[in-house]
Amino acid sequence: QKEGERLFIIDVDCGVDDALALMMLFAAPRARVLAVTCTFGNTSLQQVCSNVLRVLAICKQTEVPVYGGAEASLLGDVISATHFFGLDGLGDVAVVPGQEPPPSQDQLQQEPAALALIRLAKQWPGKINLVAVGPLTNLALAVSLDSSFPSLLRSVYIMGGNMEGRGNDSVSAEFNFFADPEAAFAVLNQYSCPLHIASLEFCSSQVLPWDFFETCFACGSEKATFVQRIMEFCSTVSKSELNMGWAPCDCFAVAAATEPGFIEASEEVAASVELAGHLTRAQMVVDWKGRWPNKRKIRLFTRCDVTLLKKLLTNMMR
Amino acid sequence: QKEGERLFIIDVDCGVDDALALMMLFAAPRARVLAVTCTFGNTSLQQVCSNVLRVLAICKQTEVPVYGGAEASLLGDVISATHFFGLDGLGDVAVVPGQEPPPSQDQLQQEPAALALIRLAKQWPGKINLVAVGPLTNLALAVSLDSSFPSLLRSVYIMGGNMEGRGNDSVSAEFNFFADPEAAFAVLNQYSCPLHIASLEFCSSQVLPWDFFETCFACGSEKATFVQRIMEFCSTVSKSELNMGWAPCDCFAVAAATEPGFIEASEEVAASVELAGHLTRAQMVVDWKGRWPNKRKIRLFTRCDVTLLKKLLTNMMR
Amino acid sequence: QKEGERLFIIDVDCGVDDALALMMLFAAPRARVLAVTCTFGNTSLQQVCSNVLRVLAICKQTEVPVYGGAEASLLGDVISATHFFGLDGLGDVAVVPGQEPPPSQDQLQQEPAALALIRLAKQWPGKINLVAVGPLTNLALAVSLDSSFPSLLRSVYIMGGNMEGRGNDSVSAEFNFFADPEAAFAVLNQYSCPLHIASLEFCSSQVLPWDFFETCFACGSEKATFVQRIMEFCSTVSKSELNMGWAPCDCFAVAAATEPGFIEASEEVAASVELAGHLTRAQMVVDWKGRWPNKRKIRLFTRCDVTLLKKLLTNMMR
Amino acid sequence: QKEGERLFIIDVDCGVDDALALMMLFAAPRARVLAVTCTFGNTSLQQVCSNVLRVLAICKQTEVPVYGGAEASLLGDVISATHFFGLDGLGDVAVVPGQEPPPSQDQLQQEPAALALIRLAKQWPGKINLVAVGPLTNLALAVSLDSSFPSLLRSVYIMGGNMEGRGNDSVSAEFNFFADPEAAFAVLNQYSCPLHIASLEFCSSQVLPWDFFETCFACGSEKATFVQRIMEFCSTVSKSELNMGWAPCDCFAVAAATEPGFIEASEEVAASVELAGHLTRAQMVVDWKGRWPNKRKIRLFTRCDVTLLKKLLTNMMR
Ligand SMILES: [Ca+2]
Ligand SMILES: [Ca+2]
Ligand SMILES: [Ca+2]
Ligand SMILES: [Ca+2]
Repeated sequence: QKEGERLFIIDVDCGVDDALALMMLFAAPRARVLAVTCTFGNTSLQQVCSNVLRVLAICKQTEVPVYGGAEASLLGDVISATHFFGLDGLGDVAVVPGQEPPPSQDQLQQEPAALALIRLAKQWPGKINLVAVGPLTNLALAVSLDSSFPSLLRSVYIMGGNMEGRGNDSVSAEFNFFADPEAAFAVLNQYSCPLHIASLEFCSSQVLPWDFFETCFACGSEKATFVQRIMEFCSTVSKSELNMGWAPCDCFAVAAATEPGFIEASEEVAASVELAGHLTRAQMVVDWKGRWPNKRKIRLFTRCDVTLLKKLLTNMMR
Repeated sequence: QKEGERLFIIDVDCGVDDALALMMLFAAPRARVLAVTCTFGNTSLQQVCSNVLRVLAICKQTEVPVYGGAEASLLGDVISATHFFGLDGLGDVAVVPGQEPPPSQDQLQQEPAALALIRLAKQWPGKINLVAVGPLTNLALAVSLDSSFPSLLRSVYIMGGNMEGRGNDSVSAEFNFFADPEAAFAVLNQYSCPLHIASLEFCSSQVLPWDFFETCFACGSEKATFVQRIMEFCSTVSKSELNMGWAPCDCFAVAAATEPGFIEASEEVAASVELAGHLTRAQMVVDWKGRWPNKRKIRLFTRCDVTLLKKLLTNMMR
Repeated sequence: QKEGERLFIIDVDCGVDDALALMMLFAAPRARVLAVTCTFGNTSLQQVCSNVLRVLAICKQTEVPVYGGAEASLLGDVISATHFFGLDGLGDVAVVPGQEPPPSQDQLQQEPAALALIRLAKQWPGKINLVAVGPLTNLALAVSLDSSFPSLLRSVYIMGGNMEGRGNDSVSAEFNFFADPEAAFAVLNQYSCPLHIASLEFCSSQVLPWDFFETCFACGSEKATFVQRIMEFCSTVSKSELNMGWAPCDCFAVAAATEPGFIEASEEVAASVELAGHLTRAQMVVDWKGRWPNKRKIRLFTRCDVTLLKKLLTNMMR
Repeated sequence: QKEGERLFIIDVDCGVDDALALMMLFAAPRARVLAVTCTFGNTSLQQVCSNVLRVLAICKQTEVPVYGGAEASLLGDVISATHFFGLDGLGDVAVVPGQEPPPSQDQLQQEPAALALIRLAKQWPGKINLVAVGPLTNLALAVSLDSSFPSLLRSVYIMGGNMEGRGNDSVSAEFNFFADPEAAFAVLNQYSCPLHIASLEFCSSQVLPWDFFETCFACGSEKATFVQRIMEFCSTVSKSELNMGWAPCDCFAVAAATEPGFIEASEEVAASVELAGHLTRAQMVVDWKGRWPNKRKIRLFTRCDVTLLKKLLTNMMR
C-alpha cells in the first residue's frame, strides 16, 4: 500500500450501472482495486464474470484479479432481471472486434469470491473498503465462513435497500435486497464495520437527464462509445416509460466510497430487513425513532453533490 | 337532509386528538353528524364512550346518538396506548363539576356500532361521509355483516396507516393500523367507495408549534380550557421528547372531510396492509408504481393548507 | 327447555357432509335445534341458505329459523370449493318437484347470523351447544360484536383444523380453517367455553367404506334417496381418486355433541392457528408439550366409536 | 476405496446423541469415514470440535480429519441448547486423565468444513454418503459455494425436521431445523441427490427404555463408561420429566445409512420448510397428497427395526 493509497474491493452483478461503477472506481485517484468479485443478479454469474472482464479490458485493467461467487441466493433462487439491462446485463450489444479490446480470460481466478474476500481481508486487516453493488450473497457467505471477516474491513459501501418502502423490484423492495433478502439481513445484522448505504430512494432522487449522458458520449472516446452502446437498451426502455433521465445507482456507492465530499447529508440509524412479509419481503426497515437502542447503527445517505457526480462520470469516460 | 347540508358519522377511539376532531366536526358549517361510533384504541371501549359523551357535553351536542363498538381487534387483541394520552385517553384530568357540563348517559345507545353504521347507511344511501380516526374494527365488522355497506357510503376519510414505512407504534406501522391490522386490510381491500387517507407521515409533516396552541387557549372559553387541560399530559410528554410542537392527527381527516380547500395535493394509488411481516406487520404498503393495475385506487393526501387547519382549530375552541 | 332436552345451534356451509350433519342432529333424541346459521364455504352464502332450507324440508323441520351470515372471510376472501361437492355444494342435483318436498322460504330470517347467535345465547345463558361445521366467520363476528358471547355458551363443537399438519385444502391446512384463518384464530384464542374439535386427521382416520353407504341407501326412504342423489357427485370424484370410502367429516362433530359415548379418547391441549406462514397459513398448531402453560386448553378428539357413527347414519336415513 | 467399502462424511453438532452416532458409524463394518465436519448447534462450534476430538480418541480414530464449520446460522443466530445435554453438549463431565485417552489437536484441520465437503465430493464423485445430524448450515454453505456439490454425492442422510408438526425446540419445529431454518430450506430445495430423513416423530416413536442403556453400560468397557458418564446429565433431566427412556435421534440416521435392513418403511414425498410463520417457523412441511407434483421427492422414514438398533448400540460400546 503506497502512501495515500486507498484499497478497494468491488462486488458486482455487472449490469450497466455496475459497468459505470467499475469505470468510476478505476478512474478514482489513489484508489487501488485489489479484486473484483462477481455475483449473480442482473444476469447469470457466468455472464457477470464475462461482463466484468469486458469492462476491465475497456479500462485497461488487465491485472486486477476477478473472482466468481454466488450463482443464486442463499435459498437457491435466481432473480429475473432482463427487462431493463437486457439478457446479458449490458444491453445485448456484442463485443465487436476492433471496436473493443478483447477481454482477457486469464484474469478470472479459481478461488471462490467469498474465500478471496476473507483471504484479502486477512492480508490487509483494517485497510479494505468493500463496495457492494449487487445482491449481497457473497458478503453473507464470507461472514458465515469466517465470522471475523467484517471486523477486518475498513468500511462497506452498499447500493441496495430502500428507506421509504418504495420498491423497484416488488411493491416495497429494492432489486439487490429482493434478489437475496436473507443475505441482506445477514449483512445488516452481522457486519460490525462502518456500513454505508445508498438506498434506492436516495439514488432515485438524483436522476441525471438524458442530455447529460449525450454530452458525456460526445467526447467520442473508446469508453464513451462503449457506455453509449451498452446504455442504448436501457435508455430506450426508460424513455418509453417517460422517464426524464436515469440514475446509475451503483455509481452513487462508488462516489461515496471514493470522494469525501460527495455525501452531503446522512442519518445514523439502525436498520434490518423484513424476511417474512407477504407484501414487504426484502424491504429494508429503518428504525428512525430509536426503538432498537441496542442495535448497531448504519449510515444512510440522504443528500449528495450531484454536480460532483456528473463531473466524475464525465471525466471517467474521457 | 336540508339543502346544502352534509351528513357525517365519525368513528373514534377518543384520545385527545379524537376529542379535537369531534370538536372540529361539530364546528363545521352545514355538517350534520348522524352518529358518533366508538372503538377501543387509545383506551378501553368503555372509557372511549365516556370520553365521547364528555366531549359532546362540552360541544352542547346532547342529541347526537353515540354507539359502542369493538372492544378488541378482530383477532382479540387490545393495544396499550397510555404513554401519550394517559390512562383515560384524555390526559387523566377528571371531570370537575361546575367546570364542565355533566356528560349525558342517555346518549349512549344499545345498538352496536357496526349495526348502527349499516342501518344509517341504508337510511341515507350515498349520502354519508364516514370519518374514521381510530382502529378500523367497526368498519371491518360492518362490511363483514353486510357486504353492501361500503357501496352505500358517499366517502370514507381515514386517519391511519403510513406511506413511507415510518411507524409510531412499531418501527414501521402507525397506531390505528397496528391496533387492528386485519381490520385495516379489510377496509383497504373491501371498501369500494371513495377512500381518503391522512397517513401518519402526512399528518406528522405538519406539526403545529406549541405557541400556536397557547394562543388558542388564551381565549379562555370553556372549550379552550377543556382542551388545555386534556392536552397537558401529552404536551408534557411531547416536550420531554424535545418535540417542537404537535400534530393533532385526527383533525386532518376531519378538515379534509369538511373543508374542500384543505387538501392541496394527493396521490391516487392502490394500497394494502402487510399482515405477515415480523418487522412490518400493519405497515400500509403503497403501490406507487402501478404494479397492481387491477386494484382499486385510494387517495393519499400529500399536502394541505396548514393555515386553514390553524384557523379551524382556533375558531372551534372559541 | 323441557326436562332432559338439550339445546343446539348449528352453523353450516351446507355441502354434502353438512347436509348429513343436519339430518343427524335433527334425528338426535332430546336435541332441540334453536337455529341453523349459515356461512359461505362449500358454496356461496345464498346457495348455502337454499341448501339448508332444502335439507330442512326433507327433515320436516319447517319451524326451525335459518339465519344468513358471512358472505366472505374477515379479510374479504371467498374460497373456491366446487371440486368435491359440485357448484351448489350438494352435488348439482336439482330439486325435483314431487321427489322432494318444496323448501320453505319463510324460514329464512332477516336478522344476521352473528346477531341471532348473540341474542339466543343471552336468552338461554349456559344452555346452548353450538356445533360449527363451516368456516368460523360467524363465530368470530359474534365474539367481536359481544365479547361475552362465548361465556354464555354451554359448549362449542367444531369440525375444522388439523393436528398433524396434514391439510386438504392446502399442503398443511384444513378447508374450514383455510377458508377463514383469522376467524379460526379468533375462536381458538377468544372462546372461553368448553371447545371440542374434530380435526381433519381425526375424521379422516375413520373413512366409511362405499358399501356401507350403499346399505344405507337400500332402505329407499325419501331421506336415503336424497342423500344418494347429493352424494353421487362426490362419490364419483372420490372413487376416481381411488379412495376406498368417505368420511362425512361434519357428522363427527354432531355425533360428538349429541352422543356421550361417541368420543372414546381425546387430548386436552392448547392450540392456535398460524396466520403468517407461506406454506402453513391456516394450519392449526397444537401445543402437545405444554409450552404455552397459560393458554386455555381445548379438547381434541383422537378416537371414536365408528360403529355408533354408522348406526346413527343408518337410522337417520330411514 | 477398497472393494465393498462405503465412504462417509458425518456432519455433527456434537451433543450426546452425536457422540453415539459417531461411535456407531466408526463401528460399522466396511464404512470408511473420510471426514468429520463440525457445526454449531448443541453447543458452540469450538466446543463441538473439542467434543468430536474427544469421541474420536475414545474410538481410536486419530487419523480421521476434523473440520470446523459454521459458528452460527445463515442469518447469524446461535441457538441455546444447554437444557438437555449440558453446557458443553456432553453432559459437562470433564476429560479425566487416565480414564479417557487424551484428544489429539492435530486432527483439527485449517480448511473450513464447507470447502472440505466440496473438495472431497470432487475427489470421490458419486461415492460419498453424507450423514448430517446437526443444523444444516455447512451443507447450505457448500451448495451456495458450489451448486454442483449435491450432484456429486451418493446420498444424504439427515436427522432433522418433523413430519406431523410436533416440535421439540418450538411448538412445531425440530431442533436442528429450528437452529437454521434457512439452511434446512436450502438443503430440501437444492439437494438433488437421494435425500433420506429421520424426522423427530420417527425417532421419537422408538424410545429406548432406561434399562436397555443400563445393560449396555454393564460391559464396563472404556466406551461404555464414557457413554454412561456423558449420558448422566440428560438421563437425569429426562427422568425428571417422567420419560420412560430416550431416543438417541442421531443414531437413527447413522443406522439408516449403514445398515440396509434398518429402515422397514418409508414414504417418498416432496417436502419443504416454513420460513415465515409466527408459530411454525422451521417446521418441515410435507406434501403428503402430491400437490407439488414438480418438486423432487425425498424419503421420509416411517418404521425401523428397533431390535437391530439396540444390537448396534450394544455392540459399539463393547
Ligand atoms: Ca448492480
Ligand atoms: Ca384516534
Ligand atoms: Ca361443512
Ligand atoms: Ca445432533
